Amino acid sequence: MTESQMLREIHEQPAAATRTIEALTPLRPQIAALAEGRRHVLFAARGSSDNAGLYGRYLLETYAGRPAAMLAPSVFTHYHAAVDLSDTLVVTISQSGGTQELVETQALVRERGAATVAVTNVGDSPLAAEADLALVTQAGPELAVPATKTYLGQTIAMAVLATTLAPDEGARVALDGELAELPGRIAQVIEAGTGVDEAACALAEAMGPTIVTGRGLLLGTALETALKIEETCLRPVRGYSYADLRHGPIAVVRPGAVAVLVAAQDGPLTAAMTELAGSLAERGATVVGVGGDEDFVRACGLHVPAPAAPETLSPIGTIVPAQLVVERLAARLDLDPDNPRGLAKVTQTDAGSPASETR
Amino acid sequence: MTESQMLREIHEQPAAATRTIEALTPLRPQIAALAEGRRHVLFAARGSSDNAGLYGRYLLETYAGRPAAMLAPSVFTHYHAAVDLSDTLVVTISQSGGTQELVETQALVRERGAATVAVTNVGDSPLAAEADLALVTQAGPELAVPATKTYLGQTIAMAVLATTLAPDEGARVALDGELAELPGRIAQVIEAGTGVDEAACALAEAMGPTIVTGRGLLLGTALETALKIEETCLRPVRGYSYADLRHGPIAVVRPGAVAVLVAAQDGPLTAAMTELAGSLAERGATVVGVGGDEDFVRACGLHVPAPAAPETLSPIGTIVPAQLVVERLAARLDLDPDNPRGLAKVTQTDAGSPASETR
Repeated sequence: MTESQMLREIHEQPAAATRTIEALTPLRPQIAALAEGRRHVLFAARGSSDNAGLYGRYLLETYAGRPAAMLAPSVFTHYHAAVDLSDTLVVTISQSGGTQELVETQALVRERGAATVAVTNVGDSPLAAEADLALVTQAGPELAVPATKTYLGQTIAMAVLATTLAPDEGARVALDGELAELPGRIAQVIEAGTGVDEAACALAEAMGPTIVTGRGLLLGTALETALKIEETCLRPVRGYSYADLRHGPIAVVRPGAVAVLVAAQDGPLTAAMTELAGSLAERGATVVGVGGDEDFVRACGLHVPAPAAPETLSPIGTIVPAQLVVERLAARLDLDPDNPRGLAKVTQTDAGSPASETR
Repeated sequence: MTESQMLREIHEQPAAATRTIEALTPLRPQIAALAEGRRHVLFAARGSSDNAGLYGRYLLETYAGRPAAMLAPSVFTHYHAAVDLSDTLVVTISQSGGTQELVETQALVRERGAATVAVTNVGDSPLAAEADLALVTQAGPELAVPATKTYLGQTIAMAVLATTLAPDEGARVALDGELAELPGRIAQVIEAGTGVDEAACALAEAMGPTIVTGRGLLLGTALETALKIEETCLRPVRGYSYADLRHGPIAVVRPGAVAVLVAAQDGPLTAAMTELAGSLAERGATVVGVGGDEDFVRACGLHVPAPAAPETLSPIGTIVPAQLVVERLAARLDLDPDNPRGLAKVTQTDAGSPASETR
């Protein structure tokens, strides 16, 4: 079997991560200046980029102490709501920078007084050109339809943004040290490929629903994993927050179900994820753990390790083992991971929008 | 077959709605006083209540021009984030008022400076007792596990809240007139039961994935419909926003799939929902429409009418035909709609939380 483009791009991630860190950290003074006097941060994105934004949202609140939330584009693009955003920084995330709905959203929130940051992989895209500040990730051309290295770049942008806005400079310097180590650790996880085959096999053989769950800083990683399994492998997959799963839908979990749980190696939520792994196993689900600590590994029937990182940065690396599993799963299902049915590289979320000129 | 408790409670909704409107509208001066100087509004909730909050969030932004968003409880309960909420009104929604995580969240955001509104059906619950202001819905005791009349009451609370905070008094008075008409229109839809059997039959016979989608003000209604189908009928169901569905997962739609589309009779999004109905039908899905306008009805293979209301209020009534379909679907699948497997009436979202004393 020939190597897929998706797998090649997964392997390019350590280098892409290094380039992106080097490109974005020097922009800290501009980020800080733009955020001056703007306490609130909103993230606008769709699909994978939305999952990266969810990490940014949690990191800004938990690490930088800034009120942050997800923006609903239709509030501006369709309802033309008269919301005053003069105390707000709006971060719009799009790998292509060409999704019409988001370019339009950025223009509209600017009219409402927001300062705008664009996070994109295409420096000459409309989104980047029209933003107050563009954080251009350095993933290079991404040819496979499933976003891998561009998503990873977006999560790095979230980390740079949140660490810039955090009040504690000492904590930031420590975290920067960890960030610099990440590309090497990501490379090790890709090379080792530990547990990837077994996890892909369990997913391929699932006889019941497939669910993916995570919490807090890693909720976005869980939703991104669910989206990737669903888009690449053409099967319905539920991504849940931990609490929403516990609140009711856990009822659909039964023998034959596969549950993918994403956890950090430390932080206040890993113990709860370990306990959830036990509950799901009791209900007969095959539990595939990604990341976590030693207790978490023990509670999961199958396990795929993630690159070592403190919880604050773990969403950057933890998506990588999930990508490896998805790529392998597509192969097992005899599907082409590079060109999922029905997906285009530059997505348009409104049927009436003109196609974008950018890639 | 004996009538289910869920069906009895669905029938009680017009009276419950009238009582709730009468109980909450006199609280407008207190709501306005509490929101004074607090421009931002956050909604904290889980499950069905979260879907009601989503309506509140859109309505506040689109109708009242206030920045509004969904709060992530773990940011406060687990990360103890140092976010200053002195410019924020936090609305916590829980039918029982006893979900420990939300009681705790309300206490923590208060410590961070937020003013707090509790929306609950239990006046002597901890959530109501500890809030700055309690909006107590008047659904009466709800015995079936799936929330119906308490959810409807929550959506009325959202409408009262948003209309109170809207700057245009004339618009508010007009909307109040529509609100007063709603209980009667809901009663008519329940009595007629138009299209309910056919929709339940299509869902029972689905051979592929079941998806539910809506947009903007009706996104919460779509997610609530998905949650109800999933919890009550024990099958995995995806609730999507329109844009997220278009952005990728539409690829899993194929012949045998059933797509439930929820739309308003007017507003800026109904045409897009009509067009989506056409796209999904082209992919071979059976399209079940709820609400909408004449064009929307024509684009849907099956249709269940919703109580007449302008888009701003349509989430209150539009859940009712969906409830009827879910109740009928459970019967067709030989399941007990009143006691879905694995669900308790007072939900606890953290495994370690003590059980609540209140119902």
